[in-house]
Amino acid sequence: MILRIAMAQINSWLGDFKYNTDKIYNFINKAKSAQCDIVVFPELAICGYPPEDLIYKEEFLKENRHYLNLIRDFSKDIGVIVGFVEENKGKAYNSAAFIYNKRLVGIYRKAQLPNYGVFDEKRYFSSGEDFKIYDFGGIKIGLDICEDIWVKDGPINLQAKAGSQVIFAINASPFHMGKMDSRINILKVQARKNKARIVYTNLVGGQDELVFDGRSVLVDAKGKILTQAKAFREDLCIYDLDSRTLPKKKVNNKKIVKVAVKKQALGKAKEPLSICESEKLSPNEEVYRALVLGLKDYVEKNGFKKVILGLSGGMDSSLVATMAVDALGSDNVIGVLMPSQFTSSESKEDAQILARNLGIKSSTIPIQDIFLKYLEGLAEQFQGTNRNIAEENIQARIRGNILMALSNKFGWLVLTTGNKSEVSVGYCTLYGDAAGGFAPIKDVPKMLVYELARHRCSISRPIIPERVFTKAPTAELKDNQKDQDSLPPYEVLDPILKAYIEDELPMDKIIALGFDKDTVKRTIEMVDRNEYKRRQSAPGIKITPKAFGRDRRMPITNRFRQS
Amino acid sequence: MILRIAMAQINSWLGDFKYNTDKIYNFINKAKSAQCDIVVFPELAICGYPPEDLIYKEEFLKENRHYLNLIRDFSKDIGVIVGFVEENKGKAYNSAAFIYNKRLVGIYRKAQLPNYGVFDEKRYFSSGEDFKIYDFGGIKIGLDICEDIWVKDGPINLQAKAGSQVIFAINASPFHMGKMDSRINILKVQARKNKARIVYTNLVGGQDELVFDGRSVLVDAKGKILTQAKAFREDLCIYDLDSRTLPKKKVNNKKIVKVAVKKQALGKAKEPLSICESEKLSPNEEVYRALVLGLKDYVEKNGFKKVILGLSGGMDSSLVATMAVDALGSDNVIGVLMPSQFTSSESKEDAQILARNLGIKSSTIPIQDIFLKYLEGLAEQFQGTNRNIAEENIQARIRGNILMALSNKFGWLVLTTGNKSEVSVGYCTLYGDAAGGFAPIKDVPKMLVYELARHRCSISRPIIPERVFTKAPTAELKDNQKDQDSLPPYEVLDPILKAYIEDELPMDKIIALGFDKDTVKRTIEMVDRNEYKRRQSAPGIKITPKAFGRDRRMPITNRFRQS
Repeated sequence: MILRIAMAQINSWLGDFKYNTDKIYNFINKAKSAQCDIVVFPELAICGYPPEDLIYKEEFLKENRHYLNLIRDFSKDIGVIVGFVEENKGKAYNSAAFIYNKRLVGIYRKAQLPNYGVFDEKRYFSSGEDFKIYDFGGIKIGLDICEDIWVKDGPINLQAKAGSQVIFAINASPFHMGKMDSRINILKVQARKNKARIVYTNLVGGQDELVFDGRSVLVDAKGKILTQAKAFREDLCIYDLDSRTLPKKKVNNKKIVKVAVKKQALGKAKEPLSICESEKLSPNEEVYRALVLGLKDYVEKNGFKKVILGLSGGMDSSLVATMAVDALGSDNVIGVLMPSQFTSSESKEDAQILARNLGIKSSTIPIQDIFLKYLEGLAEQFQGTNRNIAEENIQARIRGNILMALSNKFGWLVLTTGNKSEVSVGYCTLYGDAAGGFAPIKDVPKMLVYELARHRCSISRPIIPERVFTKAPTAELKDNQKDQDSLPPYEVLDPILKAYIEDELPMDKIIALGFDKDTVKRTIEMVDRNEYKRRQSAPGIKITPKAFGRDRRMPITNRFRQS
Repeated sequence: MILRIAMAQINSWLGDFKYNTDKIYNFINKAKSAQCDIVVFPELAICGYPPEDLIYKEEFLKENRHYLNLIRDFSKDIGVIVGFVEENKGKAYNSAAFIYNKRLVGIYRKAQLPNYGVFDEKRYFSSGEDFKIYDFGGIKIGLDICEDIWVKDGPINLQAKAGSQVIFAINASPFHMGKMDSRINILKVQARKNKARIVYTNLVGGQDELVFDGRSVLVDAKGKILTQAKAFREDLCIYDLDSRTLPKKKVNNKKIVKVAVKKQALGKAKEPLSICESEKLSPNEEVYRALVLGLKDYVEKNGFKKVILGLSGGMDSSLVATMAVDALGSDNVIGVLMPSQFTSSESKEDAQILARNLGIKSSTIPIQDIFLKYLEGLAEQFQGTNRNIAEENIQARIRGNILMALSNKFGWLVLTTGNKSEVSVGYCTLYGDAAGGFAPIKDVPKMLVYELARHRCSISRPIIPERVFTKAPTAELKDNQKDQDSLPPYEVLDPILKAYIEDELPMDKIIALGFDKDTVKRTIEMVDRNEYKRRQSAPGIKITPKAFGRDRRMPITNRFRQS
């Protein structure tokens, strides 16, 4: 017997039940047209993920059940597995519904609730404590939800032991660099250990700081990938599972729920199938696509059409502008040059070439006159003081004000272009260059910014002028300023930051990696001291194992210093 | 036999192990001088609370043990109960150490870990699974940590059942309005149910958005308050417990740890004791003190001496300036008037009178000329558009820029003066009036702002000019602007906001309370739509059961709308 399985890798919009249900409806119909027996949707596909404190709204919980019922009612002659929030006796569960032919056959409640990193599931959900095994025309199916398959001796193991031959795992697994490898590793381990096929269906799309990368995958009992859905876009990935290839297992009859599968359905000969081709992405291409999808979805899901950003002629704004054009099209990106007396002619030129290469509208609003008016206004207060960071920041904040004025006037979202290296050490002006609704490269270290830019230019024509790659980075807030007057070189800074932030290494272990002691000490101090800036920063896209935001929750008032 | 107990209600500084240990040392010495047998410190007193992701730093965990050992070594001839983070086999516990006469007698691990509201303890800690009962010269003592006593059939009940006569509960229980009543209620219930005295020692002080109010309390087995420590300040509150008044209990001998108490210690006659007087605070005085302490500690613990704020002549800035003077003294508060063509002479006058009444330094920096320069710079882009919110926000952002320039030049912390009503509906300018390092009244609804101001003026002379109470609130960003042109009257808005935010009521239930349907709908939409502003807002002091920040974690990208 052939079980035709469809992994419906959809982009749910958080809280938009009608939109999500329409989409689920369309994917069910597509799966039916393709003669599928079962179609699987991601974790919390009906409401979107992560709902955070929306869980506390009783209307939100009710809508989950209402739309689940609608999905049940239009699921004729097909099995549907779909994630939703289940309310029961005042508790909320992260659940998977198993529907067949307009009947709710069963519900599985997630047992392992992640409560680390970006996850707060113990804040919201109660743990499921039991499971069923679904006999679908003779094939024994277990259901799991995301974390359930990551835990040693967890639900997947109990289900396999009780007789499951195929595990349908539904997921909302966010992207970071290297995440796909971790997933494949755990799938291999679990498939082998449990002698089970695993049908791993993942969410796709951006939600605030998270990007879900899709790449749903089906592995055999040896952990071999049988088929894989697309990366960073919606997909319906179909596979024919031959029941004769499944391991025979002893079944715990107490756990069995027999699904009333129509006899003719499974026996029927099906048209042959082309196997979904998995895409091989280079590490840089993977990150670039994550950033473009995260940016596109943040803009569109928040109801914006166009974005605006300052073009300084430097690398950060060049990369963000390029990504924005890739995400939204050149008609929807507006660049503004805001030169001062400290802006070099090269910077202006590079910004203009970039805008031309991207085909975006750009304009120039000099800030020098406005800056002088501020200095006049502050003359009495500043009398007798030396020029310092105060005067520099005034300029950055004038630029923030201009961008926000254009945003407020025309409804464009301001993109802020700070990278992770800057955000880590606070090398940015709060309310100045840090002003904006979204920070696409907030989690991208400066060296990776260069790599991504190089990568992007290599796959088409050189959009970003070569000089932007070679000139020394500068904020141009005073004469002859260079980033490296204030910061260690990025080749040194970035690995120290990774060791401290992502790897949580103490100072002595970072020094032991071969870095200069004073440089390490100074870097750590800068990171610690600037938590207050990050707390007020715009959200950005997580691409590393530890991003700022929900992922890293540091107190601002914090007198802990390493010695 | 008399057991002399001291509740050492200290203000720990998060991460400052040396400072905290010095303080603990001083309080132990004070307790010894007062002939105390046992002195109790709050939850996580050694490291401060809440440490958040500092828990992931191995150095932070090591310091906890190091300083615990120091405390043990100087605890001669006295029992000390103190909270710390205990690392054991790669797990972290929220623990209480019981030390006597330089020996670590035992450790209790918190079993009930709060993971709701502002709390994330399941993110950090493993749960304790057992307890001991300490026989201290014949008196049977149980240890509990905060949440342990709030849970039905929780640790306190098991301990009482196993024979504890006195429960030492150590706490880091943050303030909100009505919290003390909840504590007293639970203490009464638990004391009666468990036939045990409860020695409830709480932390005091501000930490980012939280204020710990102290008010440690000792209740008898009927729930009667025997003594109570001061509110919102450090205190050593001492009480003589007569062992003859304790209930006789059957003891589970497997749980007993006998403390080697020196014979002469407990038998000795002690000098008579004056009982700590509990303070009765009015609800407004309670909130006002919470705000002043939260502000003072944020400023000082972050290494600032002085604060600066804009004085508009309105109520919000008047109250914040007054609080700042109460917290830091008039020498440490700087006011700036930043009038435009839309600023009334009354506003300027009221701001000046306030500054004079407070005895603070103030200056005036008009923004009109700077504003005109922006309009010139934007003339081409704005051509053919009508004046709207864009021009209004430019002015607010000029003010933000000026305050930040003074902050950057002189190292003063900028206070932002937005109240909860404004922050809820987004009636504020991001990077404008919302710019600043700390937002003292962020969780104070506008009507309560007036009440607190009235209260403050009533207990001394009328610092805030009467006209500030009576004139209509206005942002003065265009001619004849009033808050109520854009918002429902605050008498209507505030209860709707409470129902929606604090009580999590759905729209229909809020309307059923008697509010106009369109007003409720519009208010909810404004709250939902402005999550992005709150995400970038400065931290402020939690005084309600649900504040913005860690307490309410809403997605920005959120298409859930109630109908």
